[in-house]
Amino acid sequence: MTYAAPVRDLSFAAIDLADLAAVNRLPAFADAGESGADLLNAILDEAGKFAAEVLAPLNRSGDQQGVRLEQEQGQGRVITADGWRDAYRQFIAGGWNGLPFDAQFGGQGLPFVVSAAVAEIWHAANMAFALCPLLTQSAIEAIEAHGDAEQKSVYLPKLVSGEWSGTMNLTEPQAGSDLSAVRCRAVANGDHYLISGQKIFITYGDHDLTDNIIHLVLARTPDAPPGVKGISLFIVPKFLPDPHNSGEWTRRNDIETLSLEHKLGIHASPTAVLGYGNRDGAVGYLVGEENQGLKYMFTMMNAARHAVGVEGNGVAERAYQQAAAFAAERVQGRPIGNLRDDSDAARVAIIEHADVRRMLWTQKCRIEALRALGLTVAACFDHARNQPDAALKIAAAEMSEVLTPVFKGYATEMGCENVSLALQVHGGMGFIEETGAAQHYRDMRITPIYEGTTGIQAMDLIGRKLMRDGGKMTARVIAQIREQCATFGEIAKIAEISKTLSSGLDALEKSARTIIEFAAKDARMAAAVGDPYLRLWGVVGCGWQMAKAAEVCARKLKAGGDNFYRHKLQTAQFYFSTEMPKVDALAKTIAKSAGLIVDTECDLFTAMN
Amino acid sequence: MTYAAPVRDLSFAAIDLADLAAVNRLPAFADAGESGADLLNAILDEAGKFAAEVLAPLNRSGDQQGVRLEQEQGQGRVITADGWRDAYRQFIAGGWNGLPFDAQFGGQGLPFVVSAAVAEIWHAANMAFALCPLLTQSAIEAIEAHGDAEQKSVYLPKLVSGEWSGTMNLTEPQAGSDLSAVRCRAVANGDHYLISGQKIFITYGDHDLTDNIIHLVLARTPDAPPGVKGISLFIVPKFLPDPHNSGEWTRRNDIETLSLEHKLGIHASPTAVLGYGNRDGAVGYLVGEENQGLKYMFTMMNAARHAVGVEGNGVAERAYQQAAAFAAERVQGRPIGNLRDDSDAARVAIIEHADVRRMLWTQKCRIEALRALGLTVAACFDHARNQPDAALKIAAAEMSEVLTPVFKGYATEMGCENVSLALQVHGGMGFIEETGAAQHYRDMRITPIYEGTTGIQAMDLIGRKLMRDGGKMTARVIAQIREQCATFGEIAKIAEISKTLSSGLDALEKSARTIIEFAAKDARMAAAVGDPYLRLWGVVGCGWQMAKAAEVCARKLKAGGDNFYRHKLQTAQFYFSTEMPKVDALAKTIAKSAGLIVDTECDLFTAMN
Repeated sequence: MTYAAPVRDLSFAAIDLADLAAVNRLPAFADAGESGADLLNAILDEAGKFAAEVLAPLNRSGDQQGVRLEQEQGQGRVITADGWRDAYRQFIAGGWNGLPFDAQFGGQGLPFVVSAAVAEIWHAANMAFALCPLLTQSAIEAIEAHGDAEQKSVYLPKLVSGEWSGTMNLTEPQAGSDLSAVRCRAVANGDHYLISGQKIFITYGDHDLTDNIIHLVLARTPDAPPGVKGISLFIVPKFLPDPHNSGEWTRRNDIETLSLEHKLGIHASPTAVLGYGNRDGAVGYLVGEENQGLKYMFTMMNAARHAVGVEGNGVAERAYQQAAAFAAERVQGRPIGNLRDDSDAARVAIIEHADVRRMLWTQKCRIEALRALGLTVAACFDHARNQPDAALKIAAAEMSEVLTPVFKGYATEMGCENVSLALQVHGGMGFIEETGAAQHYRDMRITPIYEGTTGIQAMDLIGRKLMRDGGKMTARVIAQIREQCATFGEIAKIAEISKTLSSGLDALEKSARTIIEFAAKDARMAAAVGDPYLRLWGVVGCGWQMAKAAEVCARKLKAGGDNFYRHKLQTAQFYFSTEMPKVDALAKTIAKSAGLIVDTECDLFTAMN
Repeated sequence: MTYAAPVRDLSFAAIDLADLAAVNRLPAFADAGESGADLLNAILDEAGKFAAEVLAPLNRSGDQQGVRLEQEQGQGRVITADGWRDAYRQFIAGGWNGLPFDAQFGGQGLPFVVSAAVAEIWHAANMAFALCPLLTQSAIEAIEAHGDAEQKSVYLPKLVSGEWSGTMNLTEPQAGSDLSAVRCRAVANGDHYLISGQKIFITYGDHDLTDNIIHLVLARTPDAPPGVKGISLFIVPKFLPDPHNSGEWTRRNDIETLSLEHKLGIHASPTAVLGYGNRDGAVGYLVGEENQGLKYMFTMMNAARHAVGVEGNGVAERAYQQAAAFAAERVQGRPIGNLRDDSDAARVAIIEHADVRRMLWTQKCRIEALRALGLTVAACFDHARNQPDAALKIAAAEMSEVLTPVFKGYATEMGCENVSLALQVHGGMGFIEETGAAQHYRDMRITPIYEGTTGIQAMDLIGRKLMRDGGKMTARVIAQIREQCATFGEIAKIAEISKTLSSGLDALEKSARTIIEFAAKDARMAAAVGDPYLRLWGVVGCGWQMAKAAEVCARKLKAGGDNFYRHKLQTAQFYFSTEMPKVDALAKTIAKSAGLIVDTECDLFTAMN
């Protein structure tokens, strides 16, 4: 159950596919050296070492021990698993928490494409651990974008260093995907507000890794309009400055950890039910203006959704490595050409068996394609934030707008399929918890749910990204992809790949038109095929990455490139043989199923029996 | 988390699709009345009641408590969860254990198609519980088919009644999918053998539900040839007759329960490591002749594989019911046509949302199609065993030969996808164990592994069933299907379904030819695409069932049939819009990926980084 960071492939995806050099030419990253390649590789090597030595070994013990809620002086206190406090201390001492953040708050100021590559390593090594910094980063982004100068100076240095951690408090029992139903209250009280209400599913809502926890909480002021237009965002620290203790942050705020959820996976990551203001109101500080909370949340939601996609693919990589290692070790059966020889000598490791190879290839081609897609989107974030050229800035922003829900939804859905294949490679041993494959299967299952289910991503993709402007932005993004691959058909080695990609893009365009036509008839019909439309984008988007990879490999191999490029080219060919064929099936489903789904004459529940 | 047996749909599938009447016309089942429909419905109603009242409520408590191994007088003793002993006592008192078995041993002598319909209900209600009778039935079949008269008279009455349970002891640490590597030893010793060695993954290998456990054990005699030709089958009872206790079965055999596995799911079903003969050798009795053990195992393996397919689909039904009930209760969000109204009154149950409906429809259409496929195969078993007409007997046998690995592999693979969708319908709640969706997700994951992984089913399908006679038997089975559906194109309402099914059968034929061509070049290439070939059979086989259902519904609706037929017709249409489109994708994958998979120049393990 060791983990070796896929440094070469991360580096290839960042440099050759996501064009790290172009990102490093942005004025914001002027310090990184000409291409940033050396810096990237040095960082990935270091991260890989830390992940393998410190984080990966705690993954299973954390799962087994889980977290526990103890009562201390009448207050709940969450204890993480053995070794986690020390690992976290080392993690922040290494400066890993602040990679993408502004140097003025103690960050490293690195491009998002670099920090996303590193993030994959943390999630792969230990998903439950990596969720803590993931949430902290979301909190940092919210405060950086919408906090006032004082809030920035008070909270950001501690959050960027990792001395404090952050959380996102959105969900309430009646308000999950639909945040308009949020009921938590915030009443103005001098320079602050008093917050009350209950929040559920709060990841790292309480723990013992940091001295303080900065909760970002959605709540309503008494005179707020109903629905999403009346939600405000508050900073609610677990500990407040104590005037009786020289202003140290030691005064407990009125936040109670009511319980921890008993979950299918990520047992080492505390998922808390938090009670705010059960005594006299929890002190909270308004971020930005009242009633703008949902808008502020969306600022950071894009990055958080991208991060969950990276997480899903990282865990899939870990599971793949374990499956490949198992397959290379486990001796069982004989080669199919030699079934008559029953001797022990004739037996081979199962990696020799074609069906096992098929399962491994399938995981490998999806993971590498999704890695490239994720880093390409990350590079778009960098350009969208820092590109001085207005046209390039808009192009990057549009691409990231369309591809963020695609990447989040598809990387996590494929993540679940991939870890299932990794488990299957183990045969019966895969079902036994000691082997570790089952933990990845359990842990992964949350990724298509949190930060917006796949259904919510699909609604975003067809609602905000496709239909809002009648499909114009989507058409421009597809045109960008076509332009990038315009010359691929001229390279003999990848001519078929190029043709298949082009048909895939045709299918995307046609499906987009179909959905817009549906919407003109009945909005529900468009919603009914959001999921296959998102998957179609996922398949073709990954195909685009694999086509780009094939083109690079064809060039590098001609120039004497090593085996890495040969393997990568074969991976691309495998992707085009096994994943791209899904395009037609998804396009047919989009065209044919919408009407049946929305026919409410047929009540699914009463039709059960 | 209640469960209501889908009695009407089981009855429809058995009577209208699997032609129960034709089974009941077989001389072996002359007592069932003209069509057997009334008897079937009465049995299903009773089984549904018992499942809902007794078995279903123990499903979650069994998962939480699990089983435990206690030491008693130096010997391991397995204790099942609270209430399980009593439930088992009621189960056998109701005569449920012996449904399909010969009346001379106390069975009910019912057709397999009836007992398979009932088995779905047990697995849905409580998979971990239902595994005990599933294994007992396999033991009964082995002894019935290959035991001598004395063995039959000693063991069958107790096993058929359920007073004793049975197990299958195949796997050893080095011998999983490859039974040729079995090492357990059996040394002749008077009228019996002394068995020694270790067996792992023994389902219900020890427990406290019955007075005795009859292990069926694969082992080698000292002079046996190597490989599969040297494996013999033995009956090894946990308790032997005690001469000092008037011959009562109270003398403990030399079988030790060494440990229980800590598994991903089915926590209430004990999976034991058994040590045979650690003291002076475990007393075992040879079944049939020496060295014929593997052949004997295969006799019952077909039925056991079918049973696991039924199990997978049963658990999927349970998970679907729970998801549909949750979706009908859970209020969240507003209808897509009314997004501006933020009031609580505007909110709806999530079953109104198109994407939730899509997820439920997807589960429903797959489950109903697989139910029909499973019962159709079960009816083939009945004809293959009892049909006096030689041609019909062979036709049924051939169909069951081809479709058993297809049903086992596809029902369990789809089972995993279906329970994942059922979990997804719950959103964040799905990840919380209290909800129950996660248990189905965990439990289900063993089904594509045990009784032969999907890869093993695929090898069976392409090796024994397709290539052994150059594809002739497979072609005859496809011709049978075509003939059954020959007139469907004439019914306007289902003309498109009929056309799509026909293309699916074309694709099956073409893929079969492709695989035979591959095999002529390189056997590994054929093996490389066994999985997509099995899935193609699964998709088209289910399409066949849905086409049959649509034809019945079109007729019944014309004659004034009720809403059941309207719902069913829509389910068939949904299946053809969302599942049948996979045909092209799978056919393309078969045609294109084989060569890449077997190219061992590209070492998957070293290519990782």
